[in-house]
Amino acid sequence: MFQSFTAHASPDQGPPRLAALREALAREGYAGFIVPRADAHQGEYVAPADERLPWLTGFTGSAGFCIVLPEVAGVFVDGRYRSQVKDQVDTAAFTPIDWPAAKPGPWIAQNLAEGRIAFDPWLHTTAEIEALRAALEVHPITLCPTDNFLDSVWHDRPPPPDGVAFIQPDALTGRPAAGKREAVAATLRAEGQRSVVLTLPDSICWLLNIRGSDIARNPVVLAFAILHDDARVTLFADPAKFDPVVRNHLGPSVTIRPPEAFAPALAALEGTIRVDRATAPFAVGVAVEADGRTRMWGDDPCRRPKARKTQAELDGARAAHLRDGAAMVECLAWFDREAQHGHLTEIGVATALEGFRCATGQLRDISFDTISGAGAHGAIIHYRVTDATDAAIGPGTVLLLDSGGQYVDGTTDITRTMVVGDPPDGVAACYTRVLQGLIAISRTRFPKGLAGRDLDPLARAPLWMAGQDYDHGTGHGVGAFLSVHEGPQRLSRLSEVPLEPGMILSNEPGYYREGAFGIRLENLIVVIPAPALEGADDRVQLAFETLTWVPFERRLILAASLSPGERQWLDAYHAEVRARIGPRLSVGANDWLTRATEPLVT
Amino acid sequence: MFQSFTAHASPDQGPPRLAALREALAREGYAGFIVPRADAHQGEYVAPADERLPWLTGFTGSAGFCIVLPEVAGVFVDGRYRSQVKDQVDTAAFTPIDWPAAKPGPWIAQNLAEGRIAFDPWLHTTAEIEALRAALEVHPITLCPTDNFLDSVWHDRPPPPDGVAFIQPDALTGRPAAGKREAVAATLRAEGQRSVVLTLPDSICWLLNIRGSDIARNPVVLAFAILHDDARVTLFADPAKFDPVVRNHLGPSVTIRPPEAFAPALAALEGTIRVDRATAPFAVGVAVEADGRTRMWGDDPCRRPKARKTQAELDGARAAHLRDGAAMVECLAWFDREAQHGHLTEIGVATALEGFRCATGQLRDISFDTISGAGAHGAIIHYRVTDATDAAIGPGTVLLLDSGGQYVDGTTDITRTMVVGDPPDGVAACYTRVLQGLIAISRTRFPKGLAGRDLDPLARAPLWMAGQDYDHGTGHGVGAFLSVHEGPQRLSRLSEVPLEPGMILSNEPGYYREGAFGIRLENLIVVIPAPALEGADDRVQLAFETLTWVPFERRLILAASLSPGERQWLDAYHAEVRARIGPRLSVGANDWLTRATEPLVT
Repeated sequence: MFQSFTAHASPDQGPPRLAALREALAREGYAGFIVPRADAHQGEYVAPADERLPWLTGFTGSAGFCIVLPEVAGVFVDGRYRSQVKDQVDTAAFTPIDWPAAKPGPWIAQNLAEGRIAFDPWLHTTAEIEALRAALEVHPITLCPTDNFLDSVWHDRPPPPDGVAFIQPDALTGRPAAGKREAVAATLRAEGQRSVVLTLPDSICWLLNIRGSDIARNPVVLAFAILHDDARVTLFADPAKFDPVVRNHLGPSVTIRPPEAFAPALAALEGTIRVDRATAPFAVGVAVEADGRTRMWGDDPCRRPKARKTQAELDGARAAHLRDGAAMVECLAWFDREAQHGHLTEIGVATALEGFRCATGQLRDISFDTISGAGAHGAIIHYRVTDATDAAIGPGTVLLLDSGGQYVDGTTDITRTMVVGDPPDGVAACYTRVLQGLIAISRTRFPKGLAGRDLDPLARAPLWMAGQDYDHGTGHGVGAFLSVHEGPQRLSRLSEVPLEPGMILSNEPGYYREGAFGIRLENLIVVIPAPALEGADDRVQLAFETLTWVPFERRLILAASLSPGERQWLDAYHAEVRARIGPRLSVGANDWLTRATEPLVT
Repeated sequence: MFQSFTAHASPDQGPPRLAALREALAREGYAGFIVPRADAHQGEYVAPADERLPWLTGFTGSAGFCIVLPEVAGVFVDGRYRSQVKDQVDTAAFTPIDWPAAKPGPWIAQNLAEGRIAFDPWLHTTAEIEALRAALEVHPITLCPTDNFLDSVWHDRPPPPDGVAFIQPDALTGRPAAGKREAVAATLRAEGQRSVVLTLPDSICWLLNIRGSDIARNPVVLAFAILHDDARVTLFADPAKFDPVVRNHLGPSVTIRPPEAFAPALAALEGTIRVDRATAPFAVGVAVEADGRTRMWGDDPCRRPKARKTQAELDGARAAHLRDGAAMVECLAWFDREAQHGHLTEIGVATALEGFRCATGQLRDISFDTISGAGAHGAIIHYRVTDATDAAIGPGTVLLLDSGGQYVDGTTDITRTMVVGDPPDGVAACYTRVLQGLIAISRTRFPKGLAGRDLDPLARAPLWMAGQDYDHGTGHGVGAFLSVHEGPQRLSRLSEVPLEPGMILSNEPGYYREGAFGIRLENLIVVIPAPALEGADDRVQLAFETLTWVPFERRLILAASLSPGERQWLDAYHAEVRARIGPRLSVGANDWLTRATEPLVT
């Protein structure tokens, strides 16, 4: 079992830990300290050694940060976590802050007259620190890079991870590593750069066609790297992670050095050095500043080519989704059967689903902790069930089930929302609107050049018409046996990155009623050139191919509210699910699927 | 008759005028000159004295510019004018350039190795010049503010306009001028500014509750002004434009000075001076630079309050639209009747429409030259019919009719597309998609804080699905007896300005098939707080109220392609048109309207 249901945060220990941290700060003359969620690689999942935010505050969400000041410690969380944070932190010691409505700079200025605030320069990006410094410019408050004060009081801090690295074969990547190194090096040469510092593990793993075992859920090697303009790479990670087979795969152009060699290597770089101010640690930006060389801010050059999946990666994703879809359908059939016996709980569903995925024989990990949220828990957008919160799923209960698998040929991420028996009043209308949003994105064709921000409103319009909305983006990029949340592409009001063929995204509108229920529906989709169409203009258009094949909850669809086009899409989708998934199922699940995929009746 | 149908540009005179201009430039050692469409007030309509671009090139569109270099003269026009420009300029002398796909900076660098390019600093904004200078930075090309070389060779250039100013009464503005001056002055004081330079005539007319007669179509006084932080105004315009009644209305806080006093007054300003880099002439920005004072870039502070119409202005707009809608319906009824006799032409329709508007007894001007485009002319997005182009409108012809009126209580702008007899194949499907886009904007509710860019995709999605789109924004702001194109609000992918209650916008999706037909449908709408709705979240939403009441063309609507919600909206709209406009019509037109507004049959 990959997922654990123990409450690994200890909210009751927050106050004494906070006191110890404040004492350490005061001893050195600092008024405050910033505790981020991220590690030095800006990962969403971090190793136990980097779980500083939950260690201090109890808050276990995937995004947020804590600013510790003498009188107040603010825990900044976004819309997804507004409910969760209240349950997880001791609010006598920690104050939940609605972020980004409240901005950290003004908040600090309101709560601190003057003083020095410490931060660990390896855990914050340059962009983050510069924005915060700009916001504090007119105040007598200074941000100072220091050793990590939290680590100094975290006495039983776990050791760093030592997972082994392994090869991601060319048959799955579709592109040998030597060619990738050469292509990115050519970018550097074209832009007059001698080297680029890579700090994102998924960029490094993509570049070298390797994967790793350092972090739960994300099959990456925690490492830094420097790519030189001659396509050589210096990789900074514990050499013990690389066995002879992997070393042979990496070849003579890749040199492995221990992590402690990274800072000296930065100091020794010459010429123009490219650094991504949005993702690299502040410390990296500082380390390459010196006479005789030039630091040039520029995007991590691996991100866009990584986002445009190769044909082999897309073939892999399609295969992984059929396998994963069959496991999901087995689970949904099981759910309907068990619901009649009345023994369902949130943990029971998450456990069963992981079991069906394991039974494929090819699951390497789940791609994130399954969100199994019944009733009001479904409205906690990133709810993680624990033994303490596990809820029964009785008649009339709505269950939001968001999960995914890591397979060597692809990463999946799917959300379905089900109901036991008759739905509560109004839920079906909301579900239908969310489904209309998902269908709008699935069906659309759009001019080349548009970004996620241009499509995001299409998913929301049906909810807007009912005075409803959701407080998260419509979709995120997804990696190929890498991070389930991958940039730079997104379906979000914040994303200006043009969509390009080969990019995989989630399509996941939702609706949440606090204290009552949550609805989210999610398919993965891939950007493709739009199919030819009679009567179309002479314009280049893109469209989406759907990767996910699992039926929607018929009890929650108001067929009469759908337009003819929406109904047609849904019936065609269900027919495809039956054709593609049916042959992979047990007899019982196949019977269930046959019923679940019949054309809608209005 | 306000509109003239003579071809006032002289394309054949372009080559000799271009030669004269190049000779004048060469004499002073300049390699080039930039000829903008705008005057010093960045107006869309300009006085005859400022019609430099058509004088030189023959191109009469409402946007664009010409860059004259020794070997080539590029006429930069956007998507609306790609067809038109080819018909209007002598392409042996002038080269049409697709703008903004081609950018002026790189284009200059490609066509000129080195040299000085002159520009008139009163005809370009600071933002324009800075962007162009940045683009040319790495090239040995200099942009130099000079006297206007084109004016030096335009020997019969008309004199500047001398139209009289008149009062816009408080009953129509809903807000006395003294209060506006005080409110804007308070903004200056709050931002530490001693004065603001106003260069947009509609801002000045809004601020002082006056209107003018200098420019066709836009009832503005061509003027500059300085508003001081004590709410005094110095107005720079020919004093002869202001009779004693208007002077009395302006009161002792407004001082009128002749235009030639403007530059010296700028030189004499003290303290911090606010200038809008996006709208003020480059010359203004330079003039207020000097020791002992500070130029502070900031938006024209009149634009946002002007955009949020008062209750009186909205009441006026509603009344103007009923009056104007009745004139439009009379015209549509006449059109259907005349079509049977086969005598319709583009000019005939434009003339008849202006006649029906005049017959209201309240038309002060048309709000722009009526676009009456039959067949292929309809695909020329801003087509202006002339005696030379006037086309007959026979059976099977699609007519695009875009027009508006200036009434003292409101400015209107409406587009309808009609067909005589049976439509050509495929036109109805396109028309229906455009209508679906208009309906999507009309019906939507949306979260407060969104800008036009967030809604623009909703209008396009139905066309995208068919591989179609249009090369213009979905809508523009509209003034209150002021400019029919008014900023800052827009429904456009380019607009980040949050929509606010009281803003009037056009909603005008379209579809154009070059050489065949054009379709555009346009209503004016006003942003309102969204009506309360059962089941809605606790979120602030906005919505649109429709101002325009004129039926759509039934022969071009494929009712079966509409969703139930779209059909419902359209039937309800038509019922409202009948109720509101019917009582204002002649008997014949009312009969026509009754048929035109029946519920759709599917």
